[in-house]
Amino acid sequence: MTTFDMALIQRGARLRRSPYFDATLRAGCRAYTVYNHMFLPTRYDDLHAEYERLRTGVTVWDVSVERQVEITGPDAFAFTNMLTPRDLSKCAVGQGKYVLITAEDGGIVNDPVLLRLGENHFWLALADSDVLLWAKGVALNSGLDVRLREPDVSPMQVQGPKSKEVVRRLFGDGVAGLRYYWFAETDLDGIPVVVTRTGWSGEVGYEIYLREGSRGVELWDRVIDAGADLGIAPTGPSDIRRIEAGILNYGIDMTLDTNPYEVGMGWQVDRGQEGDFIGRGALARIAAEGPRRRLAGVEIAGAPLDLNMTRWPVWADGVGGAGGNGDAIGRVTSAVWSPRLKRNIGYAMVPTALAELGTRLRVATPDGERQAAVVPKPFVDPDKEIPKS
Amino acid sequence: MTTFDMALIQRGARLRRSPYFDATLRAGCRAYTVYNHMFLPTRYDDLHAEYERLRTGVTVWDVSVERQVEITGPDAFAFTNMLTPRDLSKCAVGQGKYVLITAEDGGIVNDPVLLRLGENHFWLALADSDVLLWAKGVALNSGLDVRLREPDVSPMQVQGPKSKEVVRRLFGDGVAGLRYYWFAETDLDGIPVVVTRTGWSGEVGYEIYLREGSRGVELWDRVIDAGADLGIAPTGPSDIRRIEAGILNYGIDMTLDTNPYEVGMGWQVDRGQEGDFIGRGALARIAAEGPRRRLAGVEIAGAPLDLNMTRWPVWADGVGGAGGNGDAIGRVTSAVWSPRLKRNIGYAMVPTALAELGTRLRVATPDGERQAAVVPKPFVDPDKEIPKS
Repeated sequence: MTTFDMALIQRGARLRRSPYFDATLRAGCRAYTVYNHMFLPTRYDDLHAEYERLRTGVTVWDVSVERQVEITGPDAFAFTNMLTPRDLSKCAVGQGKYVLITAEDGGIVNDPVLLRLGENHFWLALADSDVLLWAKGVALNSGLDVRLREPDVSPMQVQGPKSKEVVRRLFGDGVAGLRYYWFAETDLDGIPVVVTRTGWSGEVGYEIYLREGSRGVELWDRVIDAGADLGIAPTGPSDIRRIEAGILNYGIDMTLDTNPYEVGMGWQVDRGQEGDFIGRGALARIAAEGPRRRLAGVEIAGAPLDLNMTRWPVWADGVGGAGGNGDAIGRVTSAVWSPRLKRNIGYAMVPTALAELGTRLRVATPDGERQAAVVPKPFVDPDKEIPKS
Repeated sequence: MTTFDMALIQRGARLRRSPYFDATLRAGCRAYTVYNHMFLPTRYDDLHAEYERLRTGVTVWDVSVERQVEITGPDAFAFTNMLTPRDLSKCAVGQGKYVLITAEDGGIVNDPVLLRLGENHFWLALADSDVLLWAKGVALNSGLDVRLREPDVSPMQVQGPKSKEVVRRLFGDGVAGLRYYWFAETDLDGIPVVVTRTGWSGEVGYEIYLREGSRGVELWDRVIDAGADLGIAPTGPSDIRRIEAGILNYGIDMTLDTNPYEVGMGWQVDRGQEGDFIGRGALARIAAEGPRRRLAGVEIAGAPLDLNMTRWPVWADGVGGAGGNGDAIGRVTSAVWSPRLKRNIGYAMVPTALAELGTRLRVATPDGERQAAVVPKPFVDPDKEIPKS
């Protein structure tokens, strides 16, 4: 077996390796990307094979790149509650929330899973931006007494319909039966972990947050062993499945330059008139006026498209176009062929007027210009759980 | 010619491409890494060949990953001066400085080149961390009136002894004759640029900051054409040359967990009792007590070593070791074979007591345990310019 040549992506020792890194290499990982200054395994097999495994079996994905910001200290609740538009008084100890971190102008700094480990003890499991720097900057003149640091915590995802059985075997019925977005602090024969009922897949799933980095490969092997007869296998993220489920990817579908209302996350601003948070004024204005653009669900006509590697230009149908006149009015942020739906599905950031269902668009893809239409999202399983808790 | 398969490093459109990206791919770039959420070309040829070209000729390196934070507004000077231990009252308009950005505890947030474009107009050309988030967080309750954004600015480096001739041909004698760390705002037949007398190579060099991203390939081609008869060629960074020159790489040789005194940058705290800056108290304490550890220059015995891909463990000679007892007391952060010196050279972060010149150490390399010794740095050209201005 040839192993991946890290020199294709690495120069010196600047980028960090996951506690599971040696296991991912040994398992035949064929590609890594970089996320939060660390290597993120993206693929061991054909993307459709990984998608099928996730849909029908159980997968393991090294997401230790979800670095944590730990917030403790006497004012940890007040401080954390200021970082997000969500009302954290509704988050119990032992519970998690999917939250947005917002800037003063309402821009999205990150979209972590927040875990509340104590009254004044929080973890933010980060998407790809330096929230530790953001939080340290905010704390500086805040007058609040908090401690901010990156703890030794490294999650892995165990996802798919058979994940519940794997987690039951490893941690028992109580943990396997966790409600969505709740978590348990436990251990696996002395390996300290937090197990959460979360994931980035649209399928049933869990994340195991390792709390002792030196034991990564040991934990990995235990998880793989527990699911061996169920066909467990490591994979990368399934962009097919997450787009089907309407899940957004920070850094492309939403960024610092987008606000919650533009990306369909207005529901995150859930605290009415209670308390203050960063971006409150800006978001109130945007809510009142309506966002100028929206991230629309789109269906793109024609033959199967590979996952987009650039943001594809979008035109209103009949106005300009790739072959001719006029600037693009928007961009496809993510798009891919769904083998289940037998359609190309994705998201496009377009002016609000062109985000109405049924609006006809044109998209410049690497395979030529295509017709497209605005459609509802999520694309599948509207009644099934998606990360909205 | 086969082109690099971006799928080895890229998943979806999340990571950004440089304005020069198409040119780098066309020029046969063989590896990219990720830096500030963008692709950074690291190599077109054998590292020794690229080193020789840098030392004797002229090279072009796409460093548009050096994203800018632009600071403007009535309080831009006061705000920027608060971000760094350097006294910016000594930085004239038209001048740049190599600065550290420090956190409250004295930790290094970044080490950008700062350009002062106006009394209240600054750019920070960033190493790999989200300083825009840091600065926005700091600004929040600062009471200072500033505007912070990432402008459309993308640098490329033109380095090596023949770079002066290339810059002369493109921009004339005035620009080619810029003093170290000064810059000129100019254009190349309408392509707006800032040209600085800076670089990350230890050789004579310039950076051309493109101010209109859509014209990246056009600028690239002009630069390549201007140096064609001088043998100009694109390269990645030369870790060999920068280590010879004593230049540090943010993210490995210095990080948020290190402070200026530990990495030999105490000279950055240059304002005596004047003014305030973030980290002032912590740095005063560290200066008084002396840092607990130091980044030492090290020479590692034995056959040529490839550039380290992990942080190699270090032991005091005679105490513990790779083969036996005792925890490592430090780590090699960067090390590589210098063809010129015919020695393995690098840096190791070790306790202060073991940072004395002549201290004997042992290092666990992928090629086995080696003897090492603490030696002076820079390793070559102590009288030649290094980025200390």
